[in-house]
Order: sequence, then structure tokens, then C-alpha cells
Amino acid sequence: MSVRVFVGTHAVDAVPPDDRGLAYGDGLFETMRAHRGGVSWWPAHWARLAAGAARLKLPLPDEALARAEAEALLGGRGGVLKLLVTRGSGGRGYAPPDAAVPTWLLSHHPAPARPRDGLVLRWCDTRLAVQPLLAGLKHCNRLEQVLARAEWTASAPVVDGPGTATPDTRTLHPDAEVASSPTVDEGLMRSTEGDVVCATAANLFILRHGRWLTPAVDRCGIAGVCRGWIMGATGATQGRLDVADVETAEAVFLCNAVRGILPVARLGERTWVAHPLVAALQVRLAADHPAFAPESS
Amino acid sequence: MSVRVFVGTHAVDAVPPDDRGLAYGDGLFETMRAHRGGVSWWPAHWARLAAGAARLKLPLPDEALARAEAEALLGGRGGVLKLLVTRGSGGRGYAPPDAAVPTWLLSHHPAPARPRDGLVLRWCDTRLAVQPLLAGLKHCNRLEQVLARAEWTASAPVVDGPGTATPDTRTLHPDAEVASSPTVDEGLMRSTEGDVVCATAANLFILRHGRWLTPAVDRCGIAGVCRGWIMGATGATQGRLDVADVETAEAVFLCNAVRGILPVARLGERTWVAHPLVAALQVRLAADHPAFAPESS
Repeated sequence: MSVRVFVGTHAVDAVPPDDRGLAYGDGLFETMRAHRGGVSWWPAHWARLAAGAARLKLPLPDEALARAEAEALLGGRGGVLKLLVTRGSGGRGYAPPDAAVPTWLLSHHPAPARPRDGLVLRWCDTRLAVQPLLAGLKHCNRLEQVLARAEWTASAPVVDGPGTATPDTRTLHPDAEVASSPTVDEGLMRSTEGDVVCATAANLFILRHGRWLTPAVDRCGIAGVCRGWIMGATGATQGRLDVADVETAEAVFLCNAVRGILPVARLGERTWVAHPLVAALQVRLAADHPAFAPESS
Repeated sequence: MSVRVFVGTHAVDAVPPDDRGLAYGDGLFETMRAHRGGVSWWPAHWARLAAGAARLKLPLPDEALARAEAEALLGGRGGVLKLLVTRGSGGRGYAPPDAAVPTWLLSHHPAPARPRDGLVLRWCDTRLAVQPLLAGLKHCNRLEQVLARAEWTASAPVVDGPGTATPDTRTLHPDAEVASSPTVDEGLMRSTEGDVVCATAANLFILRHGRWLTPAVDRCGIAGVCRGWIMGATGATQGRLDVADVETAEAVFLCNAVRGILPVARLGERTWVAHPLVAALQVRLAADHPAFAPESS
């Protein structure tokens, strides 16, 4: 990882120890796919960042400066670019400073490994709290995602379904059973009210009766940039989905701005074969954004 | 503020830029009152920290080392000592590292100004989401508190009650009315389900029919160290409280481990005179913990 840290308009050596991002998660971030030194979805990422900053009344760095520094850091490379913006330094206590100066970090990371052709998912036990004031934003209060992602390791077997997915029973599986089960790629999260919302680090789309649906993100969840592109491309409908909606869907995929469109092959005991509509959408995304072309991974 | 930063057992110059506390609020903190170079509630603070670390599966520094460094930083002084512990450095992504090494910060701050004799409270519009997995912990996902505390400034007038406390109408108050209203010291927060939970940076106790009650913190809110002392001292009952319970209480006070017991004189239009039971409890606290004696402030 290469990283640059800024306070306001100045490059600095380190994050100040009284930074409110560190103290309270008082910040926002964007994780972007880069290609040949640029970020084709930059405007969409910045728009979401600006919407979050407006909701949190958080100061942002100048966009032109941030983009120039981002491109300088990329230096013609692809991979993943992360931008983290916090409310900057502040005194002890929750009251935001009157004139906050943002701390912001740019970091460059390798492109993700090419995923298997169809993801294997599990249901997470960790639920997302319902908080309309923060819903949709990619803010830095992410303990729910951390807890959910910690429910399984890369070698954990798939479990059967929402009703049986308790850590205590999983640890009792005999080794032979573990070895014969596929490893888990991602976990689906529900809200505390039972609605299916997203994966730990991706949005969700399902095909029902030939139409695309995706969970609404007005109560919890993140309004993903790739999700936004797909809604525009497919005319998908946002709404409240339950477990049965997903498990009986004709096709399921995850998406995010780093990995693009990720077809789902299995969720617990339910399996899906590759669906031509998902493949067609992947082709369309790659045509719009070459970073997501198969040869780019 | 003086501050020291550690990674594992080593003092370092700065917080690493890939720290998970910064990225996700993946950490815990304790804010402690110091007196003559020591922290009399250290065991209670460490117990809460350890309970939170167990719930989040977060590594902690060695307690003896942390306490020795804390006392070295205090150097015989009083004031406020903050300890922040994060899951340390990690890669991009929510999955916790297999062998996390905690980053921890100790900082020393001046003692708080002595509060007025009776606090003036308002009702916050920002609600607390219901999340039993994180309830009770003093974790670093604090955007709800930041938003709630940002609802008023030190010069904002008291508003009438939950039903009328909207930012839009407040900004329309004529200046004369603002000037005649008392400034606000703290705000009370309710959960998204309507229960009264806490103030932005303090727990709440109310007296009803001669008995002390405090909101349960099993769904949201923080299990405060001073709250714990008061429950032991008074035999207070935990439960679900609504707005009317508070507004019709015989006495109301806030408490936290930095400021001790803070009698409430006003909430919106409701006022309370000083209550002898609150004064008696303040005397008892000061006897147990001299940092909270009036002459210590």
C-alpha cells in the first residue's frame, strides 16, 4: 500500500492523533477501481462523497486537488484507489469544531484477485441497525460490517440457511464435513427488522419474474456506485426484500465499484447456474468501464 | 493535549495510516477522571474495555503496561485521561487480520469546567439505532452522538419539547427570544423506537415515586462507569423509559465518569428545583472519589 495524508490543502507526514475519524469514525470514504491511471467513476464517487458530507456537515477537500493528487498517486497504474475524508482534528467531546479542516488520505492497493465464476454466499447472523440518518452513506462507522465479516474465515464451510447459521453449531461440524463444503466468498446481511439489505462489502441484485430488484438503502445499507450504474442500465426497482425473495430468485449477483458484477452460484443449499442476463450485463459494464473487462483482472 | 501512541508494546511516533480505527471506527475508548496522578475508577474502566474487546474480538494491550504508561503521562496531575484502543493496522477490507496488534493512544486533557448548578437540557432529534450487538459498549462508531451534539451550539436556546424540536423552526426564532432563553448544556437522546436512552455524553437517572430509574442499555446506549457506581449506591432499576417518564420525574440527573453527577434544572419547559437526594448522592460520590469533590474542580 502506498498512501498520502493531507490536512486541508497540505500534505503531512501522519494522521494527527486527535483526528475525529480515529476517535469517532467521523468521516466518509470511497473505494474506487482505477484503470490506466484514471478512475472512470470518479464523478459518481465524488457525488456520493459530497452527499454524505452535506448530510454530516463535514468539510471536503477541493475536488480538483483531490483528483490531481489521486492521479499522481496512481502514476498511470490501475488497481484500487481509496479516499478517506474525516472531520479532522478536534477537542475531546462530540461537538464538531466550528471550523473543521478535513484530514484526507489517498491510498493505492493492488487490483483484487479475479473471483471464481460464481460466488458462494452465506447468511450473516450480524444484523444491520435501522438508522435513516446514516443510511446510504459510505461513512466510517463500520463495526457491523466488521462483525459480519468476522463470522467466517476463508476456509469456513457454507451453512444451511438463516435459521441454522449460529456460530456455536458451526464449530461443531466434523472436519470431514468442513472439507467437503465450498468455502464462503461473501455474506448477506439483513436488517434488525429482517429485510435483506446487502453483502458485507457489496450490493445485491436479484431477478424475479424477469425483472431486476435491489434492496432500498433508505434505512440501512450503502448506495453503491456500481449499484447506481446497474440501476441505470437495467431499470431495476428498489424495494424491501426478504429471505424468500432471494432464495427463490431466478438469478442473483453482487456488485461493487472495485469488483464490478459478481454472479452468485450458491447461497447455503440453494444453487444457481450462470444466467445469460447477468453475463450480458457484465459485457455491458466492461464496454462502459474497461477496468471491468475480463482481461483487466 | 499531550498524547502518546503505541503499537502493541512499543511507543511510536504516529498512528499508522492503515489503522482500522481510522478506517472503520474499529476500536473502543475510555474517558477517565484523574486525581493526583491516579484514576480511582481504573478497574471499572478496564473491565468495560475488556468486555467490549471480548464482544468485538479485539486485542487489548497489557493492562499493567497501559496503566503504568497512563500514570507516567499524568505525572501526578489530575484532569481527564483518555485511552483509545483500535484493532490496529489492517488491509483494505472488513475482514479482521488473523493476528491483530492493537494501536492504543493515551491522552491527557484539562479537567472540565465546573458545570452550572443545574443543567439545561433539550430533546435531540437524532435517534439512536437499536443494535444489541454493540449496545453498552464504548466503541468508536459515534456518528449518532456527533449528529446529536451538532443539533445545538453553546448559544442555542432551549426548545419546547420533542414534538416541536425541528431545526427549521428553531432558526426562525427572533433574536430577542433567543437571547431570553437559557443556553443548552446537553441533549437527551431517544432510540428509533422512542425509548429515552441517554444524553449525548452522559447517562440519565430519574426519580419516580421515590425510586431511581435509569434506561437499560441492552439495545443502544453506553454502560457508563459512573452509571455503574450509582446503580450500586442507589439500587436503581434499569428499564425502558419514555418521554413522559422523564418529564414527570421528581428529580433528574445526568452522570459520566469525567463530570460525576450533574443535577438537571430544566428540560424544555419543564423545570426542577435542587433535590436533596441528588445532593446527598453527590456528597457520597465525592467521599468515594475525591476527584468529584466540589473543591477539586
